[in-house]
Amino acid sequence: MNEARFEITSIGRVESPLDDPAAAPKQGDEGAPDAWLAFDPAVLEGLEGLQRGDDVIVLTWLHRARRDVLRVHPRGDPSRDRQGVFTTRSPHRPNPIGLHRVEILSIEGGRIRVSNMEAVDGTPIVDVKSTLAADAADR
Amino acid sequence: MNEARFEITSIGRVESPLDDPAAAPKQGDEGAPDAWLAFDPAVLEGLEGLQRGDDVIVLTWLHRARRDVLRVHPRGDPSRDRQGVFTTRSPHRPNPIGLHRVEILSIEGGRIRVSNMEAVDGTPIVDVKSTLAADAADR
Repeated sequence: MNEARFEITSIGRVESPLDDPAAAPKQGDEGAPDAWLAFDPAVLEGLEGLQRGDDVIVLTWLHRARRDVLRVHPRGDPSRDRQGVFTTRSPHRPNPIGLHRVEILSIEGGRIRVSNMEAVDGTPIVDVKSTLAADAADR
Repeated sequence: MNEARFEITSIGRVESPLDDPAAAPKQGDEGAPDAWLAFDPAVLEGLEGLQRGDDVIVLTWLHRARRDVLRVHPRGDPSRDRQGVFTTRSPHRPNPIGLHRVEILSIEGGRIRVSNMEAVDGTPIVDVKSTLAADAADR
Protein backbone atom coordinates (compact mmCIF):
# COMPACT_ATOMS: atom_id res chain seq x y z
CA MET A 1 0.00 0.00 0.00
CA ASN A 2 1.42 3.38 -0.94
CA GLU A 3 0.64 6.03 1.60
CA ALA A 4 -0.20 9.31 -0.10
CA ARG A 5 -0.39 12.81 1.31
CA PHE A 6 -2.67 15.63 0.26
CA GLU A 7 -2.89 19.24 1.29
CA ILE A 8 -6.18 20.72 2.38
CA THR A 9 -6.75 24.42 2.81
CA SER A 10 -9.09 26.16 5.20
CA ILE A 11 -11.97 28.01 3.53
CA GLY A 12 -13.08 29.77 6.72
CA ARG A 13 -13.37 29.51 10.48
CA VAL A 14 -16.01 28.65 13.06
CA GLU A 15 -16.91 31.49 15.42
CA SER A 16 -18.48 29.95 18.50
CA PRO A 17 -18.89 30.57 22.22
CA LEU A 18 -17.37 27.10 22.70
CA ASP A 19 -13.68 27.23 23.38
CA ASP A 20 -12.88 24.13 25.42
CA PRO A 21 -12.95 20.90 23.43
CA ALA A 22 -13.32 18.88 26.63
CA ALA A 23 -16.46 20.80 27.58
CA ALA A 24 -17.99 20.90 24.08
CA PRO A 25 -20.97 18.65 23.34
CA LYS A 26 -19.90 15.47 21.56
CA GLN A 27 -22.55 15.86 18.87
CA GLY A 28 -24.42 18.82 17.45
CA ASP A 29 -27.77 17.59 18.71
CA GLU A 30 -26.51 17.29 22.28
CA GLY A 31 -26.94 20.92 23.24
CA ALA A 32 -24.39 22.51 20.93
CA PRO A 33 -24.87 26.25 20.43
CA ASP A 34 -25.47 28.22 17.28
CA ALA A 35 -22.28 29.43 15.63
CA TRP A 36 -21.10 31.59 12.76
CA LEU A 37 -19.25 30.14 9.82
CA ALA A 38 -16.99 32.96 8.61
CA PHE A 39 -15.82 32.18 5.08
CA ASP A 40 -12.71 33.36 3.34
CA PRO A 41 -13.44 36.00 0.69
CA ALA A 42 -11.76 33.80 -1.93
CA VAL A 43 -14.51 31.15 -1.75
CA LEU A 44 -17.65 33.29 -1.48
CA GLU A 45 -18.71 32.44 -5.02
CA GLY A 46 -19.04 28.83 -3.91
CA LEU A 47 -21.75 29.79 -1.41
CA GLU A 48 -24.13 31.13 -4.07
CA GLY A 49 -27.50 29.49 -3.76
CA LEU A 50 -27.35 28.61 -0.06
CA GLN A 51 -30.49 29.74 1.72
CA ARG A 52 -31.85 30.15 5.18
CA GLY A 53 -33.49 26.91 6.25
CA ASP A 54 -31.16 24.70 4.21
CA ASP A 55 -29.62 21.69 5.91
CA VAL A 56 -25.98 21.34 4.99
CA ILE A 57 -23.02 19.18 5.92
CA VAL A 58 -20.00 21.14 7.13
CA LEU A 59 -16.57 19.52 7.17
CA THR A 60 -13.98 20.95 9.53
CA TRP A 61 -10.39 20.28 10.48
CA LEU A 62 -10.39 19.39 14.18
CA HIS A 63 -7.14 21.16 14.82
CA ARG A 64 -6.95 20.26 18.50
CA ALA A 65 -7.39 16.52 17.98
CA ARG A 66 -4.71 13.88 18.33
CA ARG A 67 -3.73 12.04 15.16
CA ASP A 68 -1.80 9.17 16.74
CA VAL A 69 -4.79 7.41 18.29
CA LEU A 70 -6.33 4.29 16.75
CA ARG A 71 -8.36 2.99 19.69
CA VAL A 72 -10.54 5.03 22.04
CA HIS A 73 -13.06 4.60 24.81
CA PRO A 74 -16.41 5.22 23.10
CA ARG A 75 -17.66 8.70 23.99
CA GLY A 76 -14.57 9.13 26.15
CA ASP A 77 -16.11 6.89 28.80
CA PRO A 78 -13.31 4.91 30.49
CA SER A 79 -15.83 2.33 31.74
CA ARG A 80 -16.34 1.24 28.14
CA ASP A 81 -13.76 -0.94 26.42
CA ARG A 82 -11.54 0.76 23.88
CA GLN A 83 -12.49 0.13 20.28
CA GLY A 84 -11.20 1.22 16.89
CA VAL A 85 -11.59 4.93 16.18
CA PHE A 86 -13.23 4.12 12.86
CA THR A 87 -16.22 2.67 14.74
CA THR A 88 -16.71 6.01 16.53
CA ARG A 89 -17.10 9.74 15.98
CA SER A 90 -14.12 10.57 18.17
CA PRO A 91 -12.23 13.69 16.99
CA HIS A 92 -9.00 11.79 17.59
CA ARG A 93 -8.13 9.86 14.41
CA PRO A 94 -5.43 9.84 11.73
CA ASN A 95 -7.19 12.54 9.69
CA PRO A 96 -9.27 14.59 12.15
CA ILE A 97 -11.98 15.77 9.78
CA GLY A 98 -15.15 16.83 11.59
CA LEU A 99 -18.56 16.12 10.05
CA HIS A 100 -21.37 18.42 11.16
CA ARG A 101 -24.94 18.43 9.96
CA VAL A 102 -26.40 21.87 10.60
CA GLU A 103 -29.27 24.12 9.56
CA ILE A 104 -28.65 27.56 8.09
CA LEU A 105 -30.29 30.17 10.32
CA SER A 106 -29.19 33.31 8.48
CA ILE A 107 -26.72 34.52 5.88
CA GLU A 108 -24.87 37.83 6.01
CA GLY A 109 -22.49 38.02 3.07
CA GLY A 110 -19.68 35.62 3.78
CA ARG A 111 -20.94 34.80 7.25
CA ILE A 112 -23.47 32.04 7.77
CA ARG A 113 -25.21 31.40 11.08
CA VAL A 114 -25.92 27.73 11.78
CA SER A 115 -27.56 25.69 14.49
CA ASN A 116 -26.09 22.97 16.70
CA MET A 117 -22.42 23.34 15.87
CA GLU A 118 -20.24 21.42 18.32
CA ALA A 119 -16.87 22.59 16.92
CA VAL A 120 -14.93 25.02 19.11
CA ASP A 121 -14.13 28.63 18.28
CA GLY A 122 -11.47 28.97 15.60
CA THR A 123 -11.96 25.52 14.07
CA PRO A 124 -10.99 25.66 10.39
CA ILE A 125 -13.77 24.93 7.89
CA VAL A 126 -12.70 22.82 4.91
CA ASP A 127 -15.91 22.07 2.99
CA VAL A 128 -19.68 22.50 2.82
CA LYS A 129 -21.93 20.03 1.02
CA SER A 130 -25.61 19.80 0.34
CA THR A 131 -27.45 16.97 2.00
CA LEU A 132 -28.85 14.35 -0.36
CA ALA A 133 -32.53 13.71 -0.89
CA ALA A 134 -31.95 10.42 0.91
CA ASP A 135 -30.69 12.39 3.90
CA ALA A 136 -33.85 14.48 4.18
CA ALA A 137 -35.50 12.21 6.74
CA ASP A 138 -32.42 12.41 8.90
CA ARG A 139 -33.57 15.00 11.41
CA MET B 1 -8.92 35.56 7.39
CA ASN B 2 -5.79 33.50 7.68
CA GLU B 3 -5.74 30.63 5.25
CA ALA B 4 -4.31 27.53 6.88
CA ARG B 5 -3.05 24.34 5.30
CA PHE B 6 -3.18 20.83 6.71
CA GLU B 7 -1.80 17.55 5.51
CA ILE B 8 -4.01 14.52 5.26
CA THR B 9 -2.69 11.03 4.71
CA SER B 10 -4.36 8.16 2.90
CA ILE B 11 -5.30 5.23 5.14
CA GLY B 12 -6.18 2.92 2.25
CA ARG B 13 -7.56 2.71 -1.27
CA VAL B 14 -10.85 1.89 -2.96
CA GLU B 15 -10.79 -1.18 -5.21
CA SER B 16 -13.67 -0.90 -7.61
CA PRO B 17 -14.70 -1.92 -11.13
CA LEU B 18 -15.38 1.79 -11.73
CA ASP B 19 -12.49 3.52 -13.40
CA ASP B 20 -13.97 6.42 -15.33
CA PRO B 21 -15.13 9.31 -13.13
CA ALA B 22 -17.34 10.61 -15.95
CA ALA B 23 -19.19 7.29 -16.16
CA ALA B 24 -19.45 6.68 -12.41
CA PRO B 25 -22.82 7.14 -10.70
CA LYS B 26 -23.06 10.54 -9.05
CA GLN B 27 -24.31 9.05 -5.78
CA GLY B 28 -23.93 5.67 -4.14
CA ASP B 29 -27.63 4.92 -4.33
CA GLU B 30 -27.74 5.53 -8.08
CA GLY B 31 -26.49 2.14 -9.16
CA ALA B 32 -22.96 2.26 -7.78
CA PRO B 33 -21.29 -1.14 -7.45
CA ASP B 34 -19.93 -2.89 -4.42
CA ALA B 35 -16.27 -2.18 -3.79
CA TRP B 36 -13.41 -3.21 -1.53
CA LEU B 37 -11.86 -0.80 0.91
CA ALA B 38 -8.24 -1.95 1.25
CA PHE B 39 -6.73 -0.42 4.37
CA ASP B 40 -3.12 0.29 5.11
CA PRO B 41 -1.64 -2.14 7.65
CA ALA B 42 -0.70 0.82 9.88
CA VAL B 43 -4.34 1.66 10.65
CA LEU B 44 -5.88 -1.80 11.08
CA GLU B 45 -6.22 -1.35 14.83
CA GLY B 46 -8.64 1.49 14.13
CA LEU B 47 -11.03 -0.91 12.39
CA GLU B 48 -11.55 -3.08 15.48
CA GLY B 49 -15.23 -3.43 16.21
CA LEU B 50 -16.56 -2.88 12.70
CA GLN B 51 -19.02 -5.60 11.76
CA ARG B 52 -20.86 -6.91 8.77
CA GLY B 53 -24.14 -5.05 8.43
CA ASP B 54 -22.82 -1.81 9.94
CA ASP B 55 -23.58 1.42 8.13
CA VAL B 56 -20.53 3.65 8.04
CA ILE B 57 -19.48 6.94 6.51
CA VAL B 58 -16.35 6.73 4.39
CA LEU B 59 -14.39 9.87 3.55
CA THR B 60 -12.19 9.79 0.46
CA TRP B 61 -9.85 12.13 -1.36
CA LEU B 62 -11.31 12.61 -4.84
CA HIS B 63 -7.93 12.71 -6.48
CA ARG B 64 -9.21 13.29 -9.99
CA ALA B 65 -11.35 16.30 -9.08
CA ARG B 66 -10.61 19.92 -9.96
CA ARG B 67 -9.91 22.24 -7.03
CA ASP B 68 -10.23 25.56 -8.84
CA VAL B 69 -13.99 25.41 -9.39
CA LEU B 70 -16.44 27.41 -7.26
CA ARG B 71 -19.57 27.25 -9.44
CA VAL B 72 -20.92 24.20 -11.25
CA HIS B 73 -23.95 23.09 -13.19
CA PRO B 74 -25.89 20.96 -10.69
CA ARG B 75 -25.36 17.28 -11.45
CA GLY B 76 -23.19 18.31 -14.41
CA ASP B 77 -26.34 19.23 -16.37
CA PRO B 78 -25.53 22.23 -18.60
CA SER B 79 -29.24 23.06 -18.91
CA ARG B 80 -29.25 24.01 -15.23
CA ASP B 81 -27.79 27.33 -14.12
CA ARG B 82 -24.43 27.22 -12.42
CA GLN B 83 -24.53 27.52 -8.65
CA GLY B 84 -22.02 27.53 -5.84
CA VAL B 85 -20.24 24.21 -5.34
CA PHE B 86 -21.09 24.32 -1.64
CA THR B 87 -24.78 23.88 -2.55
CA THR B 88 -23.95 20.63 -4.37
CA ARG B 89 -22.20 17.28 -4.02
CA SER B 90 -19.94 17.93 -7.00
CA PRO B 91 -16.49 16.32 -6.64
CA HIS B 92 -14.99 19.56 -7.92
CA ARG B 93 -14.40 21.90 -4.97
CA PRO B 94 -11.49 23.50 -3.11
CA ASN B 95 -11.01 20.44 -0.88
CA PRO B 96 -12.30 17.43 -2.83
CA ILE B 97 -13.27 15.22 0.08
CA GLY B 98 -15.80 12.56 -0.88
CA LEU B 99 -18.52 11.54 1.57
CA HIS B 100 -19.95 8.05 1.10
CA ARG B 101 -22.52 6.29 3.20
CA VAL B 102 -22.13 2.57 2.73
CA GLU B 103 -23.03 -0.75 4.33
CA ILE B 104 -20.37 -3.26 5.31
CA LEU B 105 -20.96 -6.51 3.42
CA SER B 106 -17.96 -8.49 4.64
CA ILE B 107 -14.62 -8.06 6.37
CA GLU B 108 -11.46 -9.97 5.49
CA GLY B 109 -8.64 -8.69 7.65
CA GLY B 110 -7.76 -5.24 6.39
CA ARG B 111 -10.15 -5.44 3.46
CA ILE B 112 -13.77 -4.42 3.87
CA ARG B 113 -16.40 -5.02 1.21
CA VAL B 114 -19.05 -2.28 1.02
CA SER B 115 -22.17 -1.58 -0.99
CA ASN B 116 -22.98 1.32 -3.29
CA MET B 117 -19.57 2.96 -3.53
CA GLU B 118 -19.42 5.53 -6.31
CA ALA B 119 -15.70 6.36 -5.98
CA VAL B 120 -13.47 5.10 -8.78
CA ASP B 121 -10.76 2.48 -8.47
CA GLY B 122 -7.68 3.75 -6.65
CA THR B 123 -9.43 6.57 -4.79
CA PRO B 124 -7.56 7.22 -1.53
CA ILE B 125 -9.54 6.62 1.68
CA VAL B 126 -8.94 9.20 4.40
CA ASP B 127 -11.41 8.34 7.18
CA VAL B 128 -14.22 6.05 8.33
CA LYS B 129 -16.83 7.16 10.86
CA SER B 130 -19.76 5.52 12.52
CA THR B 131 -23.16 6.86 11.65
CA LEU B 132 -25.00 8.56 14.50
CA ALA B 133 -28.17 7.23 16.06
CA ALA B 134 -29.90 10.18 14.44
CA ASP B 135 -28.68 8.94 11.06
CA ALA B 136 -30.27 5.53 11.47
CA ALA B 137 -33.46 6.44 9.63
CA ASP B 138 -31.42 7.69 6.72
CA ARG B 139 -31.68 4.71 4.39
